[in-house]
Amino acid sequence: MTTDTLSPTFAALADPTRRAILARLAGGEATVTELAKPFDMSMPAVSKHLKVLERAGLITRGRDKQRRPCRIDAARLKDVSDWVEHYRKIWEERFDRLDDYLQDLQKEQKKHGKNGREKKGK
Amino acid sequence: MTTDTLSPTFAALADPTRRAILARLAGGEATVTELAKPFDMSMPAVSKHLKVLERAGLITRGRDKQRRPCRIDAARLKDVSDWVEHYRKIWEERFDRLDDYLQDLQKEQKKHGKNGREKKGK
Repeated sequence: MTTDTLSPTFAALADPTRRAILARLAGGEATVTELAKPFDMSMPAVSKHLKVLERAGLITRGRDKQRRPCRIDAARLKDVSDWVEHYRKIWEERFDRLDDYLQDLQKEQKKHGKNGREKKGK
Repeated sequence: MTTDTLSPTFAALADPTRRAILARLAGGEATVTELAKPFDMSMPAVSKHLKVLERAGLITRGRDKQRRPCRIDAARLKDVSDWVEHYRKIWEERFDRLDDYLQDLQKEQKKHGKNGREKKGK
């Protein structure tokens, strides 16, 4: 049996603040103090979010006891990308069908438009 | 303010049974009874999962009151793909760095190997 790492990853991503923290960390490592500032959140609140992200393997913390800078770890995000990729065919087919529908609609409109002009010309 | 649809989407995906239901529906629409069978789950348990998926916009249910077949709706999955795509650079850089490291390691080994043979030859 393989360990289900996708469930805690998706659970960690199901929060806008945690996704915003990841977006911030995508620009480079940051300490808890640096992360707390733009989010206008208390340090314990940020720490709690960081623990969820760390447990899910989405971030790692530095060993420096004073700073413990947070770093994004993209391996789990790659897992999410690999997982969702299986469904690409479905949404592409969906958009292809929508495309076909819109083209049919345009053809219909053109036909009616042409008929309209023909009638006017007569 | 835009509605945060990503959070309920990620929350719905944070469960292996719900992801398995989506995988099943990727092959075509199915009724609750059809979905319950392979999962060895009670109908109410499956129904509960379907409600979470439906509320997140990941599936739609048919109007036929008797069957109400479930259908995957890939628009939210495309949102997940678009979101995670922003981080692609990070994991690709990570793997590039790993690649560089492994190449350096191989070079080092070759050098030592060559030296070893040279020593033997002398």
